[in-house]
Amino acid sequence: MVVVMDGRAPAEQVQAVISRLEECGFKAHPIHGVRRIVIGAVGDRRAISSLGLETMPGVERVVPIMKPYKLVSREAREENTVVRVGNAAIGGDGLAVCAGPCAVESREQLLEAARMVSGAGAVMLRGGAFKPRTSPYSFQGLEEEGLRLLAEAARETGLATVTEVVDEYSLNLAVQYVDVLQIGARNMQNFRLLQMVGRSGKPVLLKRGLSATVEEWLMAAEYIMSEGNGQIILCERGIRTFEQSTRNTLDLSAVPLVKSLSHLPVIVDPSHATGDRKLVGPMARAAVAAGADGLLIEVHPDPGKALCDGPQSLTPAQFAALMEELRAVAAAVGRAA
Amino acid sequence: MVVVMDGRAPAEQVQAVISRLEECGFKAHPIHGVRRIVIGAVGDRRAISSLGLETMPGVERVVPIMKPYKLVSREAREENTVVRVGNAAIGGDGLAVCAGPCAVESREQLLEAARMVSGAGAVMLRGGAFKPRTSPYSFQGLEEEGLRLLAEAARETGLATVTEVVDEYSLNLAVQYVDVLQIGARNMQNFRLLQMVGRSGKPVLLKRGLSATVEEWLMAAEYIMSEGNGQIILCERGIRTFEQSTRNTLDLSAVPLVKSLSHLPVIVDPSHATGDRKLVGPMARAAVAAGADGLLIEVHPDPGKALCDGPQSLTPAQFAALMEELRAVAAAVGRAA
Amino acid sequence: MVVVMDGRAPAEQVQAVISRLEECGFKAHPIHGVRRIVIGAVGDRRAISSLGLETMPGVERVVPIMKPYKLVSREAREENTVVRVGNAAIGGDGLAVCAGPCAVESREQLLEAARMVSGAGAVMLRGGAFKPRTSPYSFQGLEEEGLRLLAEAARETGLATVTEVVDEYSLNLAVQYVDVLQIGARNMQNFRLLQMVGRSGKPVLLKRGLSATVEEWLMAAEYIMSEGNGQIILCERGIRTFEQSTRNTLDLSAVPLVKSLSHLPVIVDPSHATGDRKLVGPMARAAVAAGADGLLIEVHPDPGKALCDGPQSLTPAQFAALMEELRAVAAAVGRAA
Amino acid sequence: MVVVMDGRAPAEQVQAVISRLEECGFKAHPIHGVRRIVIGAVGDRRAISSLGLETMPGVERVVPIMKPYKLVSREAREENTVVRVGNAAIGGDGLAVCAGPCAVESREQLLEAARMVSGAGAVMLRGGAFKPRTSPYSFQGLEEEGLRLLAEAARETGLATVTEVVDEYSLNLAVQYVDVLQIGARNMQNFRLLQMVGRSGKPVLLKRGLSATVEEWLMAAEYIMSEGNGQIILCERGIRTFEQSTRNTLDLSAVPLVKSLSHLPVIVDPSHATGDRKLVGPMARAAVAAGADGLLIEVHPDPGKALCDGPQSLTPAQFAALMEELRAVAAAVGRAA
Repeated sequence: MVVVMDGRAPAEQVQAVISRLEECGFKAHPIHGVRRIVIGAVGDRRAISSLGLETMPGVERVVPIMKPYKLVSREAREENTVVRVGNAAIGGDGLAVCAGPCAVESREQLLEAARMVSGAGAVMLRGGAFKPRTSPYSFQGLEEEGLRLLAEAARETGLATVTEVVDEYSLNLAVQYVDVLQIGARNMQNFRLLQMVGRSGKPVLLKRGLSATVEEWLMAAEYIMSEGNGQIILCERGIRTFEQSTRNTLDLSAVPLVKSLSHLPVIVDPSHATGDRKLVGPMARAAVAAGADGLLIEVHPDPGKALCDGPQSLTPAQFAALMEELRAVAAAVGRAA
Repeated sequence: MVVVMDGRAPAEQVQAVISRLEECGFKAHPIHGVRRIVIGAVGDRRAISSLGLETMPGVERVVPIMKPYKLVSREAREENTVVRVGNAAIGGDGLAVCAGPCAVESREQLLEAARMVSGAGAVMLRGGAFKPRTSPYSFQGLEEEGLRLLAEAARETGLATVTEVVDEYSLNLAVQYVDVLQIGARNMQNFRLLQMVGRSGKPVLLKRGLSATVEEWLMAAEYIMSEGNGQIILCERGIRTFEQSTRNTLDLSAVPLVKSLSHLPVIVDPSHATGDRKLVGPMARAAVAAGADGLLIEVHPDPGKALCDGPQSLTPAQFAALMEELRAVAAAVGRAA
Repeated sequence: MVVVMDGRAPAEQVQAVISRLEECGFKAHPIHGVRRIVIGAVGDRRAISSLGLETMPGVERVVPIMKPYKLVSREAREENTVVRVGNAAIGGDGLAVCAGPCAVESREQLLEAARMVSGAGAVMLRGGAFKPRTSPYSFQGLEEEGLRLLAEAARETGLATVTEVVDEYSLNLAVQYVDVLQIGARNMQNFRLLQMVGRSGKPVLLKRGLSATVEEWLMAAEYIMSEGNGQIILCERGIRTFEQSTRNTLDLSAVPLVKSLSHLPVIVDPSHATGDRKLVGPMARAAVAAGADGLLIEVHPDPGKALCDGPQSLTPAQFAALMEELRAVAAAVGRAA
Repeated sequence: MVVVMDGRAPAEQVQAVISRLEECGFKAHPIHGVRRIVIGAVGDRRAISSLGLETMPGVERVVPIMKPYKLVSREAREENTVVRVGNAAIGGDGLAVCAGPCAVESREQLLEAARMVSGAGAVMLRGGAFKPRTSPYSFQGLEEEGLRLLAEAARETGLATVTEVVDEYSLNLAVQYVDVLQIGARNMQNFRLLQMVGRSGKPVLLKRGLSATVEEWLMAAEYIMSEGNGQIILCERGIRTFEQSTRNTLDLSAVPLVKSLSHLPVIVDPSHATGDRKLVGPMARAAVAAGADGLLIEVHPDPGKALCDGPQSLTPAQFAALMEELRAVAAAVGRAA
């Protein structure tokens, strides 16, 4: 940590900051510049809830040097984490594709989707049973019945399953039926929920919040990992920006960036990011080329009848064609698919 | 709702859209333009989960005409909602100021803060007992002990109390001790929590999410109100933008805008919005001038020792001086204070 | 400046950075922490185009300590700059209101607007003769004829005049007719234009770019001032954010922030910021309460017939009523109006 | 265009809107809904500077149906525009890579860069002679001497050349020396400059402004094309968002989106977008996979000594390796390279 002080600060003010730092276990190294005094503080800032330095007289600002996350960082673990679930391995040499409908709507819909995405090469099945919807008047999910259908689809196809949990109730149900628990973008900083999935023993798919910085996203993963659960798959799904011609702005640079900062696998959801079926294919290919470990893609047997996110869902035929393209791109960047 | 179709779409495609609309209870009015066909659809879009129109051949986009919220809208209720709690009335003629520390840290700290803000003219006391923190290693709040202290401070000073709830557990405790339940910015779209506070019977202070649009914010209020609870205080607390020289960007225009769209009272939190003590005063004055019904201000007996948000907390003396200024501005805009 | 290096960087890499710093005239102070090496560098970073430190082996990042602007900073000049033009003084004790139509459209329109805003208490007249329009098919301004009308209106009413310049041609004409040259938001980083107005000898009204940080805005002012022209009025006019329910997001916090960082006066344009007539009044009042030195307000004799920005223009009667309100708020915050 | 009116608006107000529309040559189709009246207006909105509808009594909002651009749209021209310059074709079957230093610094630097990027397969050379810099104290470019060096490098290597122009002066010089004129992000809405390059007879590389919407970007291209110059290459270079861990947020979805809306070629600049050498490769590969027609990449013989943008410049060896990777990705998506 570096404390920047006004160069005109009297010696007592500088001394007060140094004393405060030493009191908290830091070693202080003051450097007197022309117009500023800079105090380098050696020690671990993350151990201390609040130093109150910013409010001390003469202090202009405090610049943290260390990243605030520990367990999820590359410094804590150099090799990649590979999350294994059923036949799927996320974060390894291959590309892991998870596909399925936004919401589980019926037995027919889900089983048909499951068979088709499995046949086209997906290794995981997604499907929402508890849907966080912007409007209280929208379809909110089949709840336990949806979970049961996911389990049935898994038995039939051998796909691993992913579903979103939104609170303690849905979590307690989901752990009985599915393989991976998803934390949705709107709950990325629902810290209680993060702690609960951290104690669940299940792998977690953690979506980036729609206005979360990369650092906040990794801190959310740190919440989970600090509860003892390191089986975390990060999922970039677009951020909110001024641009409204796509639903969100897919931040693909975050993929190589996060992979340099953390050992956790990173996948990409081009369906929610773009909100537009015709952009899903190009962005899925781009994600693979950028180094993503996998994809999360919405596929619906009949998108026009989908109870949610129809406009961004691929038909099974479109999905199968995309899988072919993805194999070619994966091979081009030296990845099995 | 208006459906925009490509002007070259064949008659069958136009007919299919019209049939789909009529099937869902709408009356369709097609208008043939030079390069586009526009179909006006009369009926209530909000009643229908999904029409799937966007995915039909020939359709370019669907433009909603009605706002998605009902109960919270000015159309549903012309007169202002006034939330009454203890001696405080939020949304009436007067200005309601809520003040106190970010977190309840100790009996001494809270009681001192309560006495001082009460003496300076605040009508509500804020204080966090369950703190959602970006880092799992930061102070997370005193929990039930904090709630007890809030209740004690209320008894001693006559202030109404506000505290944040983050899940079912904290909610069940908070209803026993405090007057108003706060939903924090990070939980604004935690729809389960919104439903729970909607059923709690307590007034709710609903902070705007840091990347929530005004419409999403009102939809979050609609979640609460659709559970039968219309005692909602909206709180603007800054949004996330590219500008990093303040912690968030206080969106003061949202105050008069929301007051034109909804009957609910709107207050402003200049402390979290700016993150900088020296900007709290000017922004508090500006909020009153813009028509805010009240303010939420962080005050700490000794900000340098605060366990969170010290840099943005006012000292009691600063708060008392600010209250004087606010009275003058309130009077200038025709408001009692 | 502080250079952060990986704690595992070998001694040669650290020495190379120190040598590079010393070569450029800095004194280097290395501090060895647990996982990072921090090198404090004393000297003036702003004098050097590029040090290339970020690309040296072992370097993680470089943290600047000094602000990049000099002449416009409070450190360079403690007292407020007051820009005087005609009877107007911007940055002094009083509130300076500039009003008028978005574009000069005709002699009748401009003279009527000028008389009315003058009668209501404005001290400056605005009116665009060269209009930067998003569409090449929109009205682009009356050019020199518009400038002549501004000069006529000035003679008749005694108002000072402001008009936007967009290139060398418009600048050379404008200096002959008007008192203050405006740099529009879209040209805030048109550095050639900034240099030209810096050499013009005329006061400059510098609008903040719609995605400019406060620092970039002050750097644009530095461009003007580094050419010898310190008569600069900064104008906050809203920034671009995800929120689309107002045209832009008025960043009022920037007013007290910039006044703490710089000695230059700051005014606010609530018309362009909100794009909505009904929000102009509340935001104008808020700007005064936040400490703005003045306002820029669009007024049109008949907004429904305006060739641009009709929806955000006040009628003369609305403007006169607003001026009354502004006087009350100004008085409440201790300002003459 | 669709005009939305309050359902309680009296018949005279509705009639007034209809009359105004008909007066301007539109045919009006009113539809009476439950709570709103919607008037469909058939005609070309783009022909009319201002209708003033938004300010008419009873009108809530006006929804445009047509895109505001004409000449650059896919509707105006179905087949792709291919810009040919020297041996390069941008927008055709192959991938066109433009590379070189941010700024022309010296004869040695530029010629070495030119030889190396040419050897690795680039078809165009970039190099700034007029540099728009945030600080007036930074290196501003070699001006005409830089242009002369670009011409020399072109003669020696056969590369086509691109350089940024910032005003009339630089434009008049650049047309004498280089093949393609670049409009930088900060000048994307410098409409005078757009008109000038539109009349220059030279191909134009138009960078997206850092907070420009896709629609505004296409409108800037429309400015150029409306002057008779359709040789336009669009360049996505990152937009400004809340995320600060990369210099900008590369909006790759804009590539397939713009290619669906317009016939113009689109290239991507991963160097300015990310500001970080280690992210340039992944984002360049992703851009090709997303369907970009080419790339703009910063390469410097010795990035550590670069006068600008060193941290994001590739070394010649890194660039050569990247070109190999790009060939593989291009082949995987069916594109020659």
